[in-house]
Amino acid sequence: MLSLILLMILSLIAFLITDELILKLKNLFINAGLYGIDLCKTDKNKIPEALGVVSGCVFLITCFLFIPIAFGNGLMDTQHFPHNEFAEFLAALLSICCMLLLGFADDVLDLRWRYKLVLPTVASLPLLVVYYVNFNSTTFIIPIPFRSWFGVSVNIGFLYYIYMGMLAVFCTNAINILAGINGIEVGQSFVIALSIVVFDIIELQGDQYKAHTFSLHIMIPYLATTLGLLKHNWYPSRVFVGDTFCYVSGMTFAVVGILSHFSKTVLLFFLPQIINFIYSVPQLFHFIPCPRHRLPKFSAETNLLHASRSIIIKKDMNVFTKVMLQILTLLRLVDFTEDNESITINNMTLINLFLIKLGPMSEVMLTKKILLFQILCSCVAFVIRYPLATYFYDK
Amino acid sequence: MLSLILLMILSLIAFLITDELILKLKNLFINAGLYGIDLCKTDKNKIPEALGVVSGCVFLITCFLFIPIAFGNGLMDTQHFPHNEFAEFLAALLSICCMLLLGFADDVLDLRWRYKLVLPTVASLPLLVVYYVNFNSTTFIIPIPFRSWFGVSVNIGFLYYIYMGMLAVFCTNAINILAGINGIEVGQSFVIALSIVVFDIIELQGDQYKAHTFSLHIMIPYLATTLGLLKHNWYPSRVFVGDTFCYVSGMTFAVVGILSHFSKTVLLFFLPQIINFIYSVPQLFHFIPCPRHRLPKFSAETNLLHASRSIIIKKDMNVFTKVMLQILTLLRLVDFTEDNESITINNMTLINLFLIKLGPMSEVMLTKKILLFQILCSCVAFVIRYPLATYFYDK
Ligand SMILES: [Mg+2]
Ligand SMILES: [Mg+2]
Repeated sequence: MLSLILLMILSLIAFLITDELILKLKNLFINAGLYGIDLCKTDKNKIPEALGVVSGCVFLITCFLFIPIAFGNGLMDTQHFPHNEFAEFLAALLSICCMLLLGFADDVLDLRWRYKLVLPTVASLPLLVVYYVNFNSTTFIIPIPFRSWFGVSVNIGFLYYIYMGMLAVFCTNAINILAGINGIEVGQSFVIALSIVVFDIIELQGDQYKAHTFSLHIMIPYLATTLGLLKHNWYPSRVFVGDTFCYVSGMTFAVVGILSHFSKTVLLFFLPQIINFIYSVPQLFHFIPCPRHRLPKFSAETNLLHASRSIIIKKDMNVFTKVMLQILTLLRLVDFTEDNESITINNMTLINLFLIKLGPMSEVMLTKKILLFQILCSCVAFVIRYPLATYFYDK
Repeated sequence: MLSLILLMILSLIAFLITDELILKLKNLFINAGLYGIDLCKTDKNKIPEALGVVSGCVFLITCFLFIPIAFGNGLMDTQHFPHNEFAEFLAALLSICCMLLLGFADDVLDLRWRYKLVLPTVASLPLLVVYYVNFNSTTFIIPIPFRSWFGVSVNIGFLYYIYMGMLAVFCTNAINILAGINGIEVGQSFVIALSIVVFDIIELQGDQYKAHTFSLHIMIPYLATTLGLLKHNWYPSRVFVGDTFCYVSGMTFAVVGILSHFSKTVLLFFLPQIINFIYSVPQLFHFIPCPRHRLPKFSAETNLLHASRSIIIKKDMNVFTKVMLQILTLLRLVDFTEDNESITINNMTLINLFLIKLGPMSEVMLTKKILLFQILCSCVAFVIRYPLATYFYDK
């Protein structure tokens, strides 16, 4: 308990340092050519990019400094030092540090897609070894209604490790594609992190309290440094966060989910990201043309955002695309106009979906609506996790 | 033994991949604005900078992939898994990964000096905790001639941790300041790494074989990826390695020295770097004016390098500087000319010292001479470590 209080004090300092450092360092980023222009604003200032590396570094350093506190009791009595828990903590930090490096390299160098898939997989390797050694539980508990078919639990063995590796890849990329308006990447990560912290606090009473203490040790400094970043990234953004931030966040959530054994609950908190991913699939896999950027279109006259659109040339359409379009139309998930030669369709992201359903709105309003949706989804997650889970699983 | 053979095969693949990746990625670096002009050449091409991040990443990934092999026996029998050794390995990789990140951030953003001192210290924290938990031996054995005064050994306690933290800072920066001509950073690191590998192999028969196996597990992939980088960085350089490489190398040597308990032997292999550092002190601490770059001056007519020089204004000199100059002149360590108002003195680096002692020479010859000196120093180190040490210490 004392260590959690010390961690909170450390994290408060980390928040202040993140805030200060971003202010101090942001010109260095512009000088290094790391900047972007905000496409949803009338003034075309240079906005420093990839500042997620600052909050990420402060986050890591806070965790480093917390090591002697977290393992203080063990350090007094090195005979009974919990080497396995220490290795867990180190593996977690190692995976996060790798993603910080990869994310920053990506922001600077603009890497290809294949590296974005290969490297999170490799970065999660130490994690999987720790998991294997410390737990190696590869069993899924089957919900009660399905037990007559599958039994009480299914041991999926090696597949469980593939699942965990893919979780890291999914989390890192899912946040990165729900992006494009001020404050959205950091905002959603903040809500997810907060949900995990609430979940940890509820579970601190249970018999898994050790796993949830571990999770809190990672999430509290993450939350603090993310808040420091959000302060500068909130509308109107003075800094952009870059892929760095998305990668670090995704890996942090994956790490906590895996090592504290609540990866399914973490996925519940990713509901909006999952919806956004599934909705994006037709464009991500190029069944429907996908432009480089799918962020909403800014109208300088009204100061409002409109859904951005792509054009499909009719004669390029194959049967599969046609069927897909019909289903999407039937489900009222797309807004399209057509003439003889082409179909104009909204880009399929959650952000554009909000705009076609709720009408054009200002950028800050859109961010707030999406974050509200994220919070609502977290509430749904808690309902699924608690009242419903007792129906599907034994207590 | 089998695991060492597998590691060598992995490292061979790592060498090939490093070689290939550097070729593939170097244009990305130029596009990202990461390039420099080689000041010691007549043609002024853009040379991609900071390619050390590529060899560093391949090095790390090789180590990751080696984890299941290194701990293969433990993985079969998780009851007796060597958690402490695993934590050691993870802490080593974590410290190296941090330096890779910091080095790359430094190359991109051009950080201030204070960050270069603070961050290696923080990055070595996990290392120190591992050391504390696994060994916590803070005792220096006193050489026989001095034992009448100090006793057989002195326990310096907490100071030992300060010494180890400073070792990390020293190693990372010492390589970075013995730089400026093609291939010198990578060349010297390669010689040091090779010396450590030879030392490990000799000691594999001894009772510290576990520590030296650990050291080999880190040094072999390091050596392979460094060789891949050297191929492109050797005269005439097609790529520059950046601070990234120097930081990663320094931290790797420090990690191995600390966790395998032969930090004093590692320092012996750093003899040229120590000489260069001591010789540089008057300029590094600004007793004598220090220009931003102290690399040798290239003469386009002769294609030779000459020692570069700085000017000291006589009326700005204080007594301390005067005394220092007199001592340096007495020791024949500087080459200077003076007129009524000023003194022109060679910049005080080992590279310039070679040029004033041996006369102007071509760049590739200078690199070879300095690397030869590094090899000679390693031989001296082995003489000190073995025949002499038996005189000063009990066997
Ligand atoms: Mg992004
Ligand atoms: Mg350098």
